[in-house]
Amino acid sequence: MNELTELEVEDESARDAGSAPADNTIELVPRFKDQGYAADLVSRRRQWLEEQTDCRLDHVGACSIPSERMRGNIENPIGASQVPLGVAGPLLINGEHAQGTFYVPLATTEGVLVRSYERGMVTLTRAGGVVSRLALDENRICPVFVFEDVVEAHEFTQFIKDNLPVMRAEAEATTRHGKLIDIDCHQIGREVIANFRYFTGDAHGMNMIAKATDQACKWITQHSRARHFYSLSGYSSEKRASGVLLSGGKGKQVTAGALIPRNLVRTHLHTTPEQLCDMWHRTMIAQLSANVVGYNGQFANGLAAMFIACGQDVANVVNSSVGVTDFEVTERGDLYSSVTLPSLTVATVGGGTALGTARECLEMLGCAGAGQAPKLAEIVAATLLAGELSMGAAIASGEYVAAHETYGRNPPE
Amino acid sequence: MNELTELEVEDESARDAGSAPADNTIELVPRFKDQGYAADLVSRRRQWLEEQTDCRLDHVGACSIPSERMRGNIENPIGASQVPLGVAGPLLINGEHAQGTFYVPLATTEGVLVRSYERGMVTLTRAGGVVSRLALDENRICPVFVFEDVVEAHEFTQFIKDNLPVMRAEAEATTRHGKLIDIDCHQIGREVIANFRYFTGDAHGMNMIAKATDQACKWITQHSRARHFYSLSGYSSEKRASGVLLSGGKGKQVTAGALIPRNLVRTHLHTTPEQLCDMWHRTMIAQLSANVVGYNGQFANGLAAMFIACGQDVANVVNSSVGVTDFEVTERGDLYSSVTLPSLTVATVGGGTALGTARECLEMLGCAGAGQAPKLAEIVAATLLAGELSMGAAIASGEYVAAHETYGRNPPE
Amino acid sequence: MNELTELEVEDESARDAGSAPADNTIELVPRFKDQGYAADLVSRRRQWLEEQTDCRLDHVGACSIPSERMRGNIENPIGASQVPLGVAGPLLINGEHAQGTFYVPLATTEGVLVRSYERGMVTLTRAGGVVSRLALDENRICPVFVFEDVVEAHEFTQFIKDNLPVMRAEAEATTRHGKLIDIDCHQIGREVIANFRYFTGDAHGMNMIAKATDQACKWITQHSRARHFYSLSGYSSEKRASGVLLSGGKGKQVTAGALIPRNLVRTHLHTTPEQLCDMWHRTMIAQLSANVVGYNGQFANGLAAMFIACGQDVANVVNSSVGVTDFEVTERGDLYSSVTLPSLTVATVGGGTALGTARECLEMLGCAGAGQAPKLAEIVAATLLAGELSMGAAIASGEYVAAHETYGRNPPE
Amino acid sequence: MNELTELEVEDESARDAGSAPADNTIELVPRFKDQGYAADLVSRRRQWLEEQTDCRLDHVGACSIPSERMRGNIENPIGASQVPLGVAGPLLINGEHAQGTFYVPLATTEGVLVRSYERGMVTLTRAGGVVSRLALDENRICPVFVFEDVVEAHEFTQFIKDNLPVMRAEAEATTRHGKLIDIDCHQIGREVIANFRYFTGDAHGMNMIAKATDQACKWITQHSRARHFYSLSGYSSEKRASGVLLSGGKGKQVTAGALIPRNLVRTHLHTTPEQLCDMWHRTMIAQLSANVVGYNGQFANGLAAMFIACGQDVANVVNSSVGVTDFEVTERGDLYSSVTLPSLTVATVGGGTALGTARECLEMLGCAGAGQAPKLAEIVAATLLAGELSMGAAIASGEYVAAHETYGRNPPE
Repeated sequence: MNELTELEVEDESARDAGSAPADNTIELVPRFKDQGYAADLVSRRRQWLEEQTDCRLDHVGACSIPSERMRGNIENPIGASQVPLGVAGPLLINGEHAQGTFYVPLATTEGVLVRSYERGMVTLTRAGGVVSRLALDENRICPVFVFEDVVEAHEFTQFIKDNLPVMRAEAEATTRHGKLIDIDCHQIGREVIANFRYFTGDAHGMNMIAKATDQACKWITQHSRARHFYSLSGYSSEKRASGVLLSGGKGKQVTAGALIPRNLVRTHLHTTPEQLCDMWHRTMIAQLSANVVGYNGQFANGLAAMFIACGQDVANVVNSSVGVTDFEVTERGDLYSSVTLPSLTVATVGGGTALGTARECLEMLGCAGAGQAPKLAEIVAATLLAGELSMGAAIASGEYVAAHETYGRNPPE
Repeated sequence: MNELTELEVEDESARDAGSAPADNTIELVPRFKDQGYAADLVSRRRQWLEEQTDCRLDHVGACSIPSERMRGNIENPIGASQVPLGVAGPLLINGEHAQGTFYVPLATTEGVLVRSYERGMVTLTRAGGVVSRLALDENRICPVFVFEDVVEAHEFTQFIKDNLPVMRAEAEATTRHGKLIDIDCHQIGREVIANFRYFTGDAHGMNMIAKATDQACKWITQHSRARHFYSLSGYSSEKRASGVLLSGGKGKQVTAGALIPRNLVRTHLHTTPEQLCDMWHRTMIAQLSANVVGYNGQFANGLAAMFIACGQDVANVVNSSVGVTDFEVTERGDLYSSVTLPSLTVATVGGGTALGTARECLEMLGCAGAGQAPKLAEIVAATLLAGELSMGAAIASGEYVAAHETYGRNPPE
Repeated sequence: MNELTELEVEDESARDAGSAPADNTIELVPRFKDQGYAADLVSRRRQWLEEQTDCRLDHVGACSIPSERMRGNIENPIGASQVPLGVAGPLLINGEHAQGTFYVPLATTEGVLVRSYERGMVTLTRAGGVVSRLALDENRICPVFVFEDVVEAHEFTQFIKDNLPVMRAEAEATTRHGKLIDIDCHQIGREVIANFRYFTGDAHGMNMIAKATDQACKWITQHSRARHFYSLSGYSSEKRASGVLLSGGKGKQVTAGALIPRNLVRTHLHTTPEQLCDMWHRTMIAQLSANVVGYNGQFANGLAAMFIACGQDVANVVNSSVGVTDFEVTERGDLYSSVTLPSLTVATVGGGTALGTARECLEMLGCAGAGQAPKLAEIVAATLLAGELSMGAAIASGEYVAAHETYGRNPPE
Repeated sequence: MNELTELEVEDESARDAGSAPADNTIELVPRFKDQGYAADLVSRRRQWLEEQTDCRLDHVGACSIPSERMRGNIENPIGASQVPLGVAGPLLINGEHAQGTFYVPLATTEGVLVRSYERGMVTLTRAGGVVSRLALDENRICPVFVFEDVVEAHEFTQFIKDNLPVMRAEAEATTRHGKLIDIDCHQIGREVIANFRYFTGDAHGMNMIAKATDQACKWITQHSRARHFYSLSGYSSEKRASGVLLSGGKGKQVTAGALIPRNLVRTHLHTTPEQLCDMWHRTMIAQLSANVVGYNGQFANGLAAMFIACGQDVANVVNSSVGVTDFEVTERGDLYSSVTLPSLTVATVGGGTALGTARECLEMLGCAGAGQAPKLAEIVAATLLAGELSMGAAIASGEYVAAHETYGRNPPE
């Protein structure tokens, strides 16, 4: 049923092993020739699945992305998932890269979410807009090396410093866009975690820097005393939450802030700067008591909705949502509000950014293609600030539950 | 342009304020009558947006979900986002609730992801399948109360214990499905975080328990010395990563495990139990050094892909991905592998579970509707175990980069 | 040179092995007969050490604790370390257990520390004193059990619930004072961490509950499917910092608070309630960014100084210092300040509490002997509150560096 | 009763305020002239305290440190606390700075502690000794600056980079020994945490670098847009436990390791390398589940005992005990064991290092005075490794409880 290319190293044995009699009971997903991305093959796979699971997949099949364009983004394709898409705005941003008024696409099934962000955006826009700045723009991958003893491990950190130019040449030979900034070493016993820090342009970059680092690691194993290594260690905190994310280096570090006049806080957010700050103080203590990493209201909501809409890698919501929201009363009694995202992972090229609705949503923001990732980062930060204001105000004013009652109810079936 | 119901408390002022001359420059998103869910109004809103942003939204408009069905799931709808959908399997599960062979829908744009999970699933199925168990099934919301001093705060914790039945009656009067299990108090200075623990059936339940707790809080403010309260504090760790998640209580606590014979580890995963355990040891130290919450390889990947496919609240990937993967060599030289998800948030009713592709994907798993949430939880856990095996093996065997080179490349445009 | 009793299982081989020729170069510390606690043997050991290391140990020998009394507290004794002891006060406390005015002994070599605490104490006393309350009084030890698979591990948690009375009987048969409150199980894969929670009276209790739990574990291994167990797992967070400490259960959970009139904040602390709160806000964000567990200014300073003075187990400063300080401006413009110590480990019997200076310091506080541990806990909390006020004020007012310049300088030698 | 110098800024008001009639009830601790360090004044203060608290302080008075030498280390002195002192060894170290055989002084009241470390030391010495290396030697202090908005905060980080030489000159003008290595900025909203990193030689250095940084901050406030600053923020993690400590920079980062032949593990530790590694694996998962910062068995025990003995700042045990222990089975079946201390705070000059018993203990180790701090750091690391081996083995072999029964019992009174 399947035709395998010789590159499919990791599945070959699984399927070959299938020829044994005892495995006849195992029905593999049909892969078809050339991996099965042709429209008719996708359709046949979907039909096969409908039969296997005795269900209809009509909506799944109502996919407007040409199936051949999915190659490189998914395997065993059967169509597309649809997530309701709304729009919130206007959001006025005075960033370094994002300047002007934006309408932000948000894909979600959580009622009230779009309205909540919209309320914050209107407030911010009426207050004169959001300023936003990018402080750092890196990505990293952290292989781990093992040595004979702590002395060799100790000496390895010096070896890395001494040979940085060579390893940079090795790494950068594999990529047009990636630039190796530096390698930081962390010795734990007789192992060394090597933090390879890259600039990856407008791409997410994990595949790019995995390949580049693999090349450098091959050189290292030939020229150092490292006994063996693993290409990933999780130290980078890609798609996981950790304390080191708060110091940046995993993606874009971006800040957004706005001064909101006291009367706008009252008319648009139904609360006062003092109430918001009291709420900040109380919930900070509560989150601290739960040992939460970072502190914010609903970063994850806005990030998930924008990431799905804009073709980002949605699992990166986990690292991107580690950040800090701040509310302060100014001397004049106004509100200063800000969000800090130390580890935001966004891309405007590669991954899912060129596909159908994602491409359209990026174009809606003027962020499609090369050179737009910093702009997208600033828009994300400004959007999250809107959400923090709106949710914070709903909690401070006591309207949170009522708002969800109004917008979060499904119609009777 | 808009017709507002009297319940739209939180946005009214924002829009009313728009009548002032200085705000003429602010173009609000058209809401239309009855919130604008009718097909033609969604279409008009999309066209308005195309004009505002000078872009085409054809794919966004190619939405097969009836727009009226989106009410309660999104505001300002303009269509739907499409995310490529693949299928991985077969996955044999011997759970308490999930029993049989499953084909799992995964929505993602990350090449190699589906293949990676598929490899793990085939391995597990050939090994005899995955066992899975649910240990806890709760959700929580944690309002915070403020008092005159530490003595009043201290006495409040006793007050809550003494009046649990009354508060349970108040809370449960608002819901058919939610059951208040208990209330745990955490005093910090003169504030008390009250952890309201509920059983929420097959629903996500946050709206349900927010409303129920609000009712109980109103009783509390009338009968206790609490000076004021905030309905949410973030202590629950909804949609955020925290240390307390590891102790469970935010969603379903579920475990999945499998014994994999040594020769299957070699033929299907291209490594040995010893190598996998050595890799576990090294990367555990690395993640510990980054102060990661929990330890696993790629929980977030599988969760995001399943959550998008199955209409879950995708932002809950953040809390759900805090968990632990374990690999061990048994005395006979085989591999024992397991995953533990202390805080998995899944639902089979409410939220986005009834919409178009989501409903179809839940049906594909036999998990649509009431009574299926525990089954879905076990399938999620078994799926994640497959991903951990495959990714762990790719790192242990050194094939990780090659696999991404093979599957993660987009076709030339 | 040594006479070993048969109970010295763990060192016997080390010393026996010393008889081999190759080990003649290794000079063991003389243990002498009966472990060498007699005054002359301590003196001989000290002389032996002076010869080995070519130094004089006159101050070490100037020890007023009878050496025989050190049995059970130290091995290979050579005398005592002396730590400068100062006194701070008066500290007025209106606790449940501690009531009246106290003068607190603080052993330290950090200049300014005693003065800093004294300033806070005088301020608190003039403000009308500190209120303090004990919320929880437990200690715990957490063995870990290993099973065949996740199913057996899952069933074990039910087994523990079903057999709690039996295990309580087993555990409590070994101790007069310890009471087994409950056992909470945490399953991770195929292992289960069993959190044995005890009331330990006025003793530190780790030896007591280790012995009791060992007895219960023996019963468990005979009656359950557990394949093996380790008596300690570190989950209890004894002498380590962790997130779970913030939820209490490791020692005494105690809170202390005080309302300080605005003018006292100015005259005694040289700042304002607003400045203190602004400082709290800023440094909270900073500590959050460093991923600090808990939030406070100098809990560790006061704890270390009191623990050394009062014969506590000083290593417990690590878990005890995980706690939260809070400053708030009241509606009238005064300061409300509090400290919360969720995991304070203090004892008034056992350990070093009966020895020489420690006994005297406990008597100074009216805390020597049985029934006094809750009182000591409240005094510790009130003392820490004094330190938080003083240090917080020094940072808020900008006097921190000047204060250390004044008090932290050693005289010229 | 008191004579105050004009420098006693922080207490003056507290005492002056004491002249008001309402405060006559408050009995301040007698300070005496010249702060009361003369022997007779210390004695009079002790007598005053005995009368106030109705207790005898004979042991406290049995202090051999000349009271005048306590100036700069303590205020309101009344004598000294005595902590039982034992010695463990021999410990063979092959470090960069520490070379040879050491006998280590340990001050504690926890029975079995000295014996436990001794067992590990004998084992390590018989195995050929411990290697140890210092990777980093810094200390830091982290003031926080506040700005008008996020843009000014953003620009400040560049300002700091541009003006590093000036600030270095300002800072180093205040100290002979401190060297400003660099300043790292962390922007959170409109505030910036500035991490001032110093080399502080053999001193603890906090007073030194607080003064130096204060000087630099004065220059900053005059030349930048910073609206105000706080001299400390807690970001440095001095005397607190945090995630960033694992990356080093707070004190000395030091590693110690040893290869222990299989038969020595059996004869001296009563276990096997495999059992030790299994125990490591299980307890690692348990500590991870408790969200412990770092992973080790009893760092705090050894650190507290050495810090008290050697005149270190004992509160620094909190940051110093955040570290990692590792056990591995080598290919030959032997044990490789290591400890990593990323943030060890030790000094051989300043603080309490010159006082009485502390000086003698440092001399015992050949670590008294200038140039010895790196050596002391290596000895501490090697000592902790001994403790990890012994405690780990006691848990792995099941002898933990028996050992405490043997050594942890006080004699009947």
